[in-house]
This record gives sequence, structure tokens and C-alpha cells, in this order.
Amino acid sequence: MLDDSYRQRMHVLTEALPYIRQWQGKTVVVKYGGAAMDDPELRNSVAKDLALLHYVGIRVVVVHGGGPQVTDMMSRLGLEAKFVGGLRVTDEATMEVAQMVLVGLVNKELVSLIQKHGGKAVGLSGKDAGLIRATKLEHAAGDLGRVGDIVAVDTSVIDVLTDAGYVVVVSTIGIGEGGESYNINADTAAGAVATALRAEKLIVLSDIPGLLEDVSDETTLISQLTPSQAQELIAAGKVSKGMIPKLQSCLLAIEGGVPRAHMIDGRLPHSMLIELFTDAGIGTMLTVGE
Amino acid sequence: MLDDSYRQRMHVLTEALPYIRQWQGKTVVVKYGGAAMDDPELRNSVAKDLALLHYVGIRVVVVHGGGPQVTDMMSRLGLEAKFVGGLRVTDEATMEVAQMVLVGLVNKELVSLIQKHGGKAVGLSGKDAGLIRATKLEHAAGDLGRVGDIVAVDTSVIDVLTDAGYVVVVSTIGIGEGGESYNINADTAAGAVATALRAEKLIVLSDIPGLLEDVSDETTLISQLTPSQAQELIAAGKVSKGMIPKLQSCLLAIEGGVPRAHMIDGRLPHSMLIELFTDAGIGTMLTVGE
Amino acid sequence: MLDDSYRQRMHVLTEALPYIRQWQGKTVVVKYGGAAMDDPELRNSVAKDLALLHYVGIRVVVVHGGGPQVTDMMSRLGLEAKFVGGLRVTDEATMEVAQMVLVGLVNKELVSLIQKHGGKAVGLSGKDAGLIRATKLEHAAGDLGRVGDIVAVDTSVIDVLTDAGYVVVVSTIGIGEGGESYNINADTAAGAVATALRAEKLIVLSDIPGLLEDVSDETTLISQLTPSQAQELIAAGKVSKGMIPKLQSCLLAIEGGVPRAHMIDGRLPHSMLIELFTDAGIGTMLTVGE
Amino acid sequence: MLDDSYRQRMHVLTEALPYIRQWQGKTVVVKYGGAAMDDPELRNSVAKDLALLHYVGIRVVVVHGGGPQVTDMMSRLGLEAKFVGGLRVTDEATMEVAQMVLVGLVNKELVSLIQKHGGKAVGLSGKDAGLIRATKLEHAAGDLGRVGDIVAVDTSVIDVLTDAGYVVVVSTIGIGEGGESYNINADTAAGAVATALRAEKLIVLSDIPGLLEDVSDETTLISQLTPSQAQELIAAGKVSKGMIPKLQSCLLAIEGGVPRAHMIDGRLPHSMLIELFTDAGIGTMLTVGE
Amino acid sequence: MLDDSYRQRMHVLTEALPYIRQWQGKTVVVKYGGAAMDDPELRNSVAKDLALLHYVGIRVVVVHGGGPQVTDMMSRLGLEAKFVGGLRVTDEATMEVAQMVLVGLVNKELVSLIQKHGGKAVGLSGKDAGLIRATKLEHAAGDLGRVGDIVAVDTSVIDVLTDAGYVVVVSTIGIGEGGESYNINADTAAGAVATALRAEKLIVLSDIPGLLEDVSDETTLISQLTPSQAQELIAAGKVSKGMIPKLQSCLLAIEGGVPRAHMIDGRLPHSMLIELFTDAGIGTMLTVGE
Amino acid sequence: MLDDSYRQRMHVLTEALPYIRQWQGKTVVVKYGGAAMDDPELRNSVAKDLALLHYVGIRVVVVHGGGPQVTDMMSRLGLEAKFVGGLRVTDEATMEVAQMVLVGLVNKELVSLIQKHGGKAVGLSGKDAGLIRATKLEHAAGDLGRVGDIVAVDTSVIDVLTDAGYVVVVSTIGIGEGGESYNINADTAAGAVATALRAEKLIVLSDIPGLLEDVSDETTLISQLTPSQAQELIAAGKVSKGMIPKLQSCLLAIEGGVPRAHMIDGRLPHSMLIELFTDAGIGTMLTVGE
Repeated sequence: MLDDSYRQRMHVLTEALPYIRQWQGKTVVVKYGGAAMDDPELRNSVAKDLALLHYVGIRVVVVHGGGPQVTDMMSRLGLEAKFVGGLRVTDEATMEVAQMVLVGLVNKELVSLIQKHGGKAVGLSGKDAGLIRATKLEHAAGDLGRVGDIVAVDTSVIDVLTDAGYVVVVSTIGIGEGGESYNINADTAAGAVATALRAEKLIVLSDIPGLLEDVSDETTLISQLTPSQAQELIAAGKVSKGMIPKLQSCLLAIEGGVPRAHMIDGRLPHSMLIELFTDAGIGTMLTVGE
Repeated sequence: MLDDSYRQRMHVLTEALPYIRQWQGKTVVVKYGGAAMDDPELRNSVAKDLALLHYVGIRVVVVHGGGPQVTDMMSRLGLEAKFVGGLRVTDEATMEVAQMVLVGLVNKELVSLIQKHGGKAVGLSGKDAGLIRATKLEHAAGDLGRVGDIVAVDTSVIDVLTDAGYVVVVSTIGIGEGGESYNINADTAAGAVATALRAEKLIVLSDIPGLLEDVSDETTLISQLTPSQAQELIAAGKVSKGMIPKLQSCLLAIEGGVPRAHMIDGRLPHSMLIELFTDAGIGTMLTVGE
Repeated sequence: MLDDSYRQRMHVLTEALPYIRQWQGKTVVVKYGGAAMDDPELRNSVAKDLALLHYVGIRVVVVHGGGPQVTDMMSRLGLEAKFVGGLRVTDEATMEVAQMVLVGLVNKELVSLIQKHGGKAVGLSGKDAGLIRATKLEHAAGDLGRVGDIVAVDTSVIDVLTDAGYVVVVSTIGIGEGGESYNINADTAAGAVATALRAEKLIVLSDIPGLLEDVSDETTLISQLTPSQAQELIAAGKVSKGMIPKLQSCLLAIEGGVPRAHMIDGRLPHSMLIELFTDAGIGTMLTVGE
Repeated sequence: MLDDSYRQRMHVLTEALPYIRQWQGKTVVVKYGGAAMDDPELRNSVAKDLALLHYVGIRVVVVHGGGPQVTDMMSRLGLEAKFVGGLRVTDEATMEVAQMVLVGLVNKELVSLIQKHGGKAVGLSGKDAGLIRATKLEHAAGDLGRVGDIVAVDTSVIDVLTDAGYVVVVSTIGIGEGGESYNINADTAAGAVATALRAEKLIVLSDIPGLLEDVSDETTLISQLTPSQAQELIAAGKVSKGMIPKLQSCLLAIEGGVPRAHMIDGRLPHSMLIELFTDAGIGTMLTVGE
Repeated sequence: MLDDSYRQRMHVLTEALPYIRQWQGKTVVVKYGGAAMDDPELRNSVAKDLALLHYVGIRVVVVHGGGPQVTDMMSRLGLEAKFVGGLRVTDEATMEVAQMVLVGLVNKELVSLIQKHGGKAVGLSGKDAGLIRATKLEHAAGDLGRVGDIVAVDTSVIDVLTDAGYVVVVSTIGIGEGGESYNINADTAAGAVATALRAEKLIVLSDIPGLLEDVSDETTLISQLTPSQAQELIAAGKVSKGMIPKLQSCLLAIEGGVPRAHMIDGRLPHSMLIELFTDAGIGTMLTVGE
Repeated sequence: MLDDSYRQRMHVLTEALPYIRQWQGKTVVVKYGGAAMDDPELRNSVAKDLALLHYVGIRVVVVHGGGPQVTDMMSRLGLEAKFVGGLRVTDEATMEVAQMVLVGLVNKELVSLIQKHGGKAVGLSGKDAGLIRATKLEHAAGDLGRVGDIVAVDTSVIDVLTDAGYVVVVSTIGIGEGGESYNINADTAAGAVATALRAEKLIVLSDIPGLLEDVSDETTLISQLTPSQAQELIAAGKVSKGMIPKLQSCLLAIEGGVPRAHMIDGRLPHSMLIELFTDAGIGTMLTVGE
């Protein structure tokens, strides 16, 4: 009597509803960047997911990057992009470009897109309301200019806005003691913001399925691991270079008291929904061993 | 890259989430009876659905019948069940049996079952807090004894309990001016309770797929109709005898201001979820023409 | 200048008003049963008192028994009532009868009667909202069937209803882990409910004036005693068999932190008012020695 | 089985409790003066009643006079008291004496006495928080000095204090536009304050049982009358000179929307309790004919 | 381009605004007496300041004296004023005069004056709501009659009134256990009230610029000192007799936890504004060494 | 006895305090641009004023321009700035530059500066939370590209942030139906935002003292005028070209219900404080004739 479509819906719904309830009123921080930001279709699908999470009562906070967009504008202005150890060397001119591109363009495009899907969104930089206080990063490789080290995260303004029902989108420009700007790594900022918000979950979107036992074989996905297992993997050189900052972001959050942190594949449409609302989940979950 | 199971989940979730949000905090009245109450497996599935609706923030109020159980206890006590025009002739002895079976047994079993699936439920009769005030029904066919006509529905106690997060289960025993009991038809009571609660939706579970163009052919389902179309169908003799009180219940609710009333197939597991959370819906919806 | 009637009113009022204030907003649990339940006139007078207490702002919770009514229905259904050590042997059939008679009939009659006197009342069983969680009682005398031992009392639903201004009437059917029913002794339940509610007072209605020094002489009433004095009385065989569960109920409440517990004569009309609102009081009060 | 004392208590309590509930949270204004103020025992009994009313949740506001005390202090200061048409001619020196005696002595003694009986009381003059705004009374008989006519009553400060659980005691000194003091008739002030507070009841204590058909015969008490009947009585010369201002105060309140105003015998101890909490009541009630 | 008047306003405003914010919602207790009370122009200026402080959101509580006014009324009544060690010997007749003059006249004049400048004010005695509980002062010099020693300060009624936006003016008449009155030194009362209110500041108006190194030379003002420095000054005889009670009042407040207490010159118009809203301040500040 | 400095402070404070109270909790919209934005010292002084207004409890909303900064960045990117009728022709490339400069740089610099002076500030664009909804401006002079016409202002997010104690700084980028950006004239936006917020006052900072009778003579300042007088001035050609959009902004606000709108000289340090907190005020006030 029941056709397949009925059975599937029935199955997915009875599975999903308890999760939906579980996440209502909880805070989820999403680190957004990579392929999911570069591809217009994925950008659309991520924005829709953020709006849907917001719809069902989750407090959604997005922390975004935007390196390629900054580099592109620099080249239009005749400035050269330099990197040391994965960090952008940030002189005054670079700082100005990074701030205006991330805060003025990337942030607002995401805000627009979430609103197109029915969410209400507000974009902030780390300078607004002293959200991300920073100081100059001391780096072994020498002077990186305005690359910042996070000193404190004051989430008051995020609390006010999520209480009032807004998705909050954060550009990771920090503010120094004298009011000057700092360029903050977005993965690091996401971990720090999740910690400061006492988030229930951090989701880091990346360009691979998750951590892999064998980096060359996507079928060797590690579904779940503890912080110490993660440290061992890094030590054993089993984490790809690109994934190390993602994993560090998750470790930072877990150490800060966030119960679960996930690295999931931003290239799969609606991967956040699958992670949050199905038994199977997706990607790699970092959590303190239970 | 995406397997079928992923696609199905993704599809059902993106379809369902906006509905879930739409129903949060809204009141849905469910008329429960028939096959869905007689079959233990369906009973379990209905109770699970009620718990799940409650989970995602819907204010759920159940109005139940229980004719077969009353008749069974009457026969154990050597009393004979008589019906006139579909209504049970209710002398004092019958009234006492109906009240103790519905309020003392059927109601509490449903309360238990909802709690088994994680809901919090409270059972009430129409006598508690003067919920259903009634008077003796005047009937063309003569004296039906303690069969009651609803005079007023005071939903204060339901509001208090749903505000506090309980599913409310109502046995349809009315209270007269002198405190005496009345036997109230459950379909009628469901319509009146939905109206008094200003519910967003009334769902009447029945034993067929809905209203049919051709009563002998289940493929001729009428998905949606207006009150006047419904009256025409009745006049044309196109509504089966068993469905008439269901349809009357829905008409009562619509006339009382409930925006939508549904007759759905209680024999299908989880049919309430399909009705509430999918684009397709199920069964027959009565609504004022838009 | 002042006639007698004026003097009496003046005297009773100046005496009563401070007590009335003292009890406003406080919780009083009343164990109701015995002659006060069997006699229609007393039933009416008790219901009026409960409504009056409710009127002046006391949070009133009634825990009722109903053994004779259960036994009567059992005999109508051809079932035989058996007792071991004062407890009803409760096979499945007996359990069903007890539940439907207590919850479906006795409880609702009391609810009706309180409402007739202007109170607003809601009847609950111990199954509603998981109010009385129970497990099978292990008894020295062997298997008593569904006689239950209280595991926990969750008064949330009572709090919600008394906050909203309802008198709550509780039938002492407990709920087991699997949702099954248990038959709970009403005296025991009253003590446990008073404790869980942190009630200010437990009043147990009985069929004698209170505890007596000499059980054959009603003029030897003991007005007040401590728990240890009560234990001595029991040990000395000075407490009549029928009063032992009443006294145990009071002891349970006092040990649970209820400041005062009273055994008063339910055969005297309005004895609750005299106990609560006059200097003299009535019956026997159990309290920790001050 | 029931002795007389039990029966009386039972009777008075069942009669009184519904009244007590009815008056909870309501505002009662008491005009206090005359014999009840001069006799120390009656003073004590009135203060006890005010504390008891306050106890059971009535919002009690007392408006007091004190003519004899003012006259006494004037004579100690070598000033002569003069009256025109029942009003005290109030030159500057008299005004100063009236204010310091009423506000500084009479008011505070009543505050102390209410507190001695367990109430919490705050004394105010009409100057505090601009409670009674007044202007010079124009009088046919010529210049009466600082005798005031009420312009407006701003009860904000009374509301704040009764909300916070205080009995409020008001001395009837008014405040003029320039901040100067006015001597206000206490009967008039009581009616105006009752009106401004939208009180449920005004009780004027006097030195006779109430209005009498035959002023020389206390058995001809008029229990109830309407404003127009009252006007007729005055016109017919059937109201004694001393009672006219009392009756005018009641008329003022009734016209201002206070549902009931009473003149009761302040010489009877606890007459306020008898009026408020018994079926029979006492004295004369003025009310719009129902 | 900027004229002098513009520059001055600009300067004073940029200096004052941060102080104004700092004091919003804070409690300041002002001890009012001396020249500032005797001179009509200063009285007006003080009342205006109190109204202005109230305007910008400060919770203002005034504790006033009034010795000269009491002495004057005593002489009009043929009573002789006697003092021992700076305290007024207070027999029953004197007590009555002190209470009626302070509560009935002085307090109400200040209330009127504050209201004339747009504030809302309520006058209280220490008897109202049991504000200042006192007992008979035991004094080395013998029986001083009704001179009181403060037992407790219950600020509930002040909290209620300042929460509701009133300036509170307190006459220092205390209430004994039996309801009797006590004459309380106003300087002492001010320190005790400031302590009980957990005030942010106590300002004592006096008739000299503050504490002086050399009492005969007003240019030797001590701007700030600690409690122990103050004790040394007293021991060294460097504090004038009239200033000792002022200093004691400040010491009492500081020891009670008030962060800052000031003795300022009440003879200078608007000296309270200068103290509160300018960098320079005025007078002598007592504070725990930072 | 009083030196000049004391007198000046006393005078300015007694003048300013009533204004300060009057403005507490009120909303003031400031249009910021011109010389006050270009000169670093004035920028600092404006930011300090905004922080001070915020300090004393005013809800401060700043709407800023930034044309010179946009033009400068355009030239660095090799883009040419074109204007038609005072409006910037805004092709896609220009729109991108305007958005990133105004939102990413100018807005955040002002946010930083306000915070440096102790305020808490949040910067928004008109795209955040759908604050400024716009459509393409139809202009007589032809296609101006992405120059926008305001359709609606939804101030919900501003209300949330000012309720929570933040200064809000708005960049005037509007959002179209499809989520696209529009370049909105800042003077127009300021008037529309003031209207939508039901502000008490709009202050437009300009580079002259206000409206002048004779544009070549700054001593002919018009202190106050009505909307119709303003329209006459425009018609008479007596308003300089640069002042017309300022005046239009004020007219828009007044017509929208804002009681007072001011054009004041942004070149004078702290001119906002002088306008708000002194009797004299400054500049030209537009208000409906009283």
C-alpha cells in the first residue's frame, strides 16, 4: 500500500524530527570557505542551508574567509600577495584591501544570499562592538605586518542579534588596542568564536570528505576521533597540509569546551543538513572520547 | 558522487524544514479513533507521531473516541448497547461505563504510549476545569438519555498545559449545569475543540484515504474542496455514511475559523507526518476557497 | 450595645484573618477517603471546604482513595476482592477495574463537586505527565500483582496547574517503566506527594477524632506529638490498626520536610476550616518538636 | 457531636471566606475620625482592623481628620479656633499648626499603631508627590484663609506604595500651585481619593449607627439607599447636621464611580470587619440602584 | 571662530557628560542642614540641585535636620531647650514638638520646594514603614530622655519610592519597639541611611569649605583623606567642634561600605553640582586609600 | 567668594542638566559627512561627541557618506568618477568600489573611533537585515546605473542594537529585490532613517553655519524656519546648491513626523553638544510652526 516515495519520506522524517528538536535554540558555528565559496551553485546551496537551520530555530553564526577575493583585488590595485607559512604577509596597503574586500564585499554577498532564501542576516566585522580583540602576531618567520593574534572574543553583540533572530555573518578583521585593524586567520577565528559562544557544534566546511586514514584514498574516512588521536595523526604526518588549519580550528573549539567539531565536505550540496539531521552524519567528527 | 540515500535525505529535508518552522508554536487538533486505535502497531505509530509533532514545537491536542471498548465493557457488565442514528443510547448505567472506560482506560493508555515515545502527556475529560460544558441533546428520534449537546468549550486548562509543554489528550465526556456527565460524539467534540482553540489545523484520522469521487474507487481521491463543495457532495449522496460525521467535524472547524481541516487515512503509518511536512500532503483537505 | 451574634463574628474573624493570610499561596495536601467520602452530605461539605480553601488563595492538592467503589465494581464484574496485610491483591483484571473506577468515576465526581461550589478543579492520575513513577512492590507475604511502590513523584504538572489557579485531584495509579499501571496505596501516595510538593501541611481525613491515649475513649485525644513519640505509640500498640497507615502517611511527610501533618475527623463537617483557621485547631498534629 | 463554639466558627468561616476572596487585591478607602479616633481603645481596634484587612490582601488607604487635636495645639499656642459653616477659618498661623499636628503627630501615631498590629504603613500628606492639588476655596461666607478646594488628586504615589504592600495613611493637607499649603476637609478628601483610586469601597466611620429614618431612634436604621434617595433625605431635613458631610463624601465617591460607600458606626469595635466579611453587614450603604 | 562663551560651554559639557553617565542610577545621600537650610536663597538653590540630580537619573535621598526650627517652636510653647554634649535633652513634650516641626513642617517645605523645581518628592519620617528603628541612647552624661540610638535601618520603602522615580526626604524621628518616637541626630542618621542603601556617595553640607589644615585659614583645605588620617586629625584636635559630627557621619558611611563621603560648603550655590560633575570637585572627600 | 570658573561651570551645568534629562532614551539621527569627516581632528571631535551622547543615554544613529574616499579608490583602480545632477553615475564596477570603501573602510573607521572614546558601536550597511530596501532610481537625466531610490526602511535591527546599548553606524548601500546593491544618497537616507525610527531629532552636519538670509554673509543666519518658509527660500534661489540636499533631508524628516531637524556647522568642534545641551543652540532648525 505504501509506495517508495512515501516510505522514504516517512523514514527520513521520523529519523530527522528528534534531531531537529535537539538542535532548536542551540548555537552552531559554521566556518565557511574553500570550494563551497568559490562555486556559485554551492554558494547558493550553503546559503539555503544556513537559512533552513535558522528556520528551525538554530542560532547560526558564520565565520568566513575569502583569500582568493583579496588576492584578486590586490592584483587589480597592483599589489603583490606574499605568504609565509600559509599566512598572508599583511602590510598596511594589504590590510586595507583585505578589510574592504572581506567586510565590504564577501560578507555582504553572503548576507544577501541568506536573505534571498528567507533568512534574516546581519554581517559584522571583528571591529564592530569590539567583537574580536587582537594584537600583532609574533611569528618565528619574522614580521608579518598586520597579521593578528586573538586576545579576546566578546560575543555580546552576537548574543543580542541571535536572540533577536538574526543569522550573524562574521568577517575576521580584528581590532587592536589603538583601534587599528588586524588580519585574522578565519579557521582560528571560527574556533575562538565557537568557544566564546559556548556553541554546541562547530562545522568546518572543507574541500575533502574529512580526515582520511590514507590521504590518497577517500574511502578511508575517519568518522570520529578524539583530540589525542588527532594529535597523533598530525604527528604521524597523516593530515594533509590544507587540512591542518581546519583540524586546529576543531581542536581549539573542543579544548574550549565545544562538545563536537566537524570537518565536512563543502563540495556536497546540503552536507550541513545531512550532518545535523541524519543518524549517519557525514565527514569527520572530533569529540572528547565518551 | 551523491548516492541515492544521500539524495533522498537531502530532498526530504530541504522540503520538510520550511514546514517544520511553519508549524512551530501552532496548535494542531487530532481526532483519533477507528482502525488507527484498534490496531496495536498503528496505535504505536500514531503515538510516536504525536510525540514527534510535540518534539518539534507543535501544540498537539488529541480528541479520542473509543466506542468498541465501551461496548465491550458493557457486555461484560451484562448491559446491551443500543444505537439510534449512529448515536449511542445512553442511560445512566451506560453513561457510567462510557465515562470509566474512556477516561479511566482509553485515555490513560494513549497518555502512556505518547510518553513511551518521549512526549509529555496529560489526559483530561471534558469535566475537568469545565472544559466541555453540555446539555441534553434533543433528538428527533426520541430520548437518547445522557447524549450531550455541546454548550461551550473553555480551553483555559488546555492553554495552560500546552504552554507548559504537554500534549493534551481529551476524552469527550461533557459536564452539565448540575455537574452531571454527558456522552459527547468525538467527531463533533474535535471540531468544537479545534474552533475554541483557534487551531491552525484539524486532522481527522479515518479508515479510508479521504473523500472519493467514486466511493468504490480509492484512486478517485478528492485532494481539496471547499465547504460548499462538501455540502454538495453530501447532498448528492457521494459521501459514505461512515465519513459523514468526519466531514461534519471538519465543516464545523472551518466554519469556526480553523483555516484547514483534513481527513486522512489512519491506516497508513505516519500519515500525519506526511500530511504536515511534505509538499504532496495526503488525504482530503477542506478549506475556504482561496 | 453588641449582641452575641456580633461578638461571635467579631471574635471568629479577628482570630481567623491572620491564619488566612498565613496560608495564602501555601500548598496544603489533603488525603481524602473514608466516611467523608462515603456519606453524600459530608462529601458535599468536604468539596465546599476545598473550594473555600482554593478561594482564599491556598494551593490545594487532593489525593483520594476509593476502595469500596472498586470492590463494588469488581463484584459487578464477577471478580473477587482479596487483601493481604491491608493491601489489595491486584491481578491484571483488578488493576483495570481499579484504574477505571478511581480515575474514571471517583476522581471526576470529586472534580464536579468542587466545581459546583465555585472552585476550578482538574483531575489527574499518577500516569499523567509521569506524576507517580512506580515499580512492583516486593512484599513479604508474596506476590501482590500490580501493587506498586513509589519510585519518584514529579510534581511539574501539579505546579503548572496550581500556578494557574486549579485545585488538583489525584487518583493514585502509578506508572511503571514500560508504561504499565500500578495500584498505589492512597495514604502512602499522599505523604509522598506532600513531600515532593514541599507542602506546608498534610491533612489526613479519618474516621476518628485523631490519635487517642486510650483508643476506647475519644476524650483522650492527643493534640500534638513528635515523630519519635508517634513511633513509641505504635510500638506500644496504642495506635488502632486503621489509623496506622494514616499515621505512617504523616510520618512520611514530616520526614520529607513537611512542617506539619494532621489527622482530623472527616466526619465533622468543615473540620478542615476549623483546623486551618482557628487557634484551637482540631485532631492530632504531628510535627518535629520545637 | 458538634458543640456551639464549633458550630459558630464553622458558620462564620463558611460565610466569611467567599467575602475574603472577593476583597483580595481590591482597594478600600477608610475615612477615619470622630469617636473612633478619640477613644484609645477604639483607636487600637481600628488600627488592628486596618492591619487585618491589609493582611488578607486588601489595598487599604486611610484618610484621617484630627480637628480636636489641632484645636488643642492652637490653644496651647494662644491661638483661637474659629469656624464658619463647619469649616475652620485658617489663617497662616492656623495653617501651620494644622499641618504640623496632622502630618507630624496624628498621622504618625496611626502609622505606629497599624505597625504594632503587624501591618506595614506609610504616612503621606497631600503635599507629598503632589497627591492632593488644591486652590483657595471660594466661600459664600467670606474669606476662610487657607481652606482649600481640591483641584486634582494624583494617586501615583499611593499606587506605588500599595503595590509594594503598604497601608497608606493620608493627612489632608493640599498643595497649591506655588507650593503653599491648604487645609482640606477630610470627608471631602476621602471621597475624592476613593474616586481617584477607583476604589471598590469607601467606608466612612461616624459616631452613629448610620442614616436613620427617625434621627432620634437608632432602631430606624436605613440599610441601603441610592444617591437620589439620599438627596431626598437631605432635602427633607432628615439627615443630622453631623452626618451631612459624611453623606456628601459618600455621594461624591458614588458619583465618581466607586460602586459602594458606607457610613458605619466607628464606636463599635471591629465594625469594618463585620461590614466587609458578613452577610448582614452593618450601617448604611449608598449604592446606585441595581 | 569660537567665542569664549562657546568654548566655556564646550569645555564644561565635555567634562561633565562622562560624570553624568557615571552617576545615572546611582544612589546619593545628602545630609542637609545648617546655613543652606536657614537662608531662603540657598534653600532654593539646594532644592534646585536636588531636582536636577533627580532629573539626570540619580537616586537622591535627603536626610535633614532642623534644630533651630524646633527650638523656635519650643519657645513659642513656653518650653526651654537644653543640650548636653551637643545633643538635645528630649523629654516627652520636646519629643512631640521635634516630631511635629521636623515631620510636619521642615520636611514638607523641602518636599514642596523640590517639586517647585520639577522634581517629584516624598517625605518620610523614620517611623514610616519602620524605616529607622531606634532604642533609648545610653549616654555618659545621664538621662537624655527620648534621644535615640539607631538599631536598624530598613530601606525597603526608600527603594520602592526611588525605583518609582521619587526623591525621598527623611526626617530623623526613629521608632522604638513599642511604637514610641525617638529623636535621632541627623548627621548620624545620614551615615546610617547611606550605609543601609549601599549608596555610592554621601554628601554632607556644612558651613565651611571642608576640613582645614589650619582651622583659621580657609586656604588650607584638605581635598582628600583616608579614615585613618581623619582619626589622626581628630586626635590632634585639628577638627573644629562643629565639624566633628559631620566627619563622624562620613566615617560611619565609609566604614559601612560607601565608597566616598564628602563634606562640602553648603553656603556656595550649586556646590553639589560642582562636586558631582566637574574634574576639580569641591570640599573634602573621605575615601579608603586607593 | 565664587571665582569665574566656578560661576561658568555652575551656569553651564544648571542650563545643561534639564536638556540632558530631556534627551535620555530619545533617538537622534546624525548625518555625518563633509569637512567634519575629512579633517582628522574634527573626525575625532565628532566621534567623541557621539560617544558622549551615547553615554548620557541618547540612542544615537549615524548615517554617513564618503564620496571623496570612493572617488579616490576609483582612481587607484583606474576608474573615472562621473556625476549627473550631483548624483554619482554608478556602473557595476563603481558600485563594487563604493560598497567596499563605504562599508569596509569608512564605516569601520568611524566605529573604531567611537569605541576609542568609550562608546560601543556597530556598523551596518543597508543590506544587513534588509535595512534599506531600494530600487533603481528613474532619473530625468538618463540611466544612472545602480543609483537607488529608497523603497522601505526596516529599522528592526537598529532597534535591537540601540536597545542593547550600541551606537549604530549606517553605510547607505541599499538592497534590491534580487539582493543586488544600490548606491543611495546619504542625505536622503538620513532623512528616511530618521523618519522610520520616529527619531526626536535629525542633525545634519554641513560645512557652513546653517541657512543664511544672504548666502555671502555668515552673520545672516536663520535660526529657525518652517517647511513652507524653507520651500520659499529654495524657490527664491536663496539656498546654496550644496545646502539643498541637506535641507531636503531635513524636510523629508519633518514631513515624516520628526519634530525637529537641524543643519549645523560640522566645522565647529562639539557643535552637536552645543545644539543639544544649551539654551542658545546653534545653526538652523527646521520645525513645524508652533
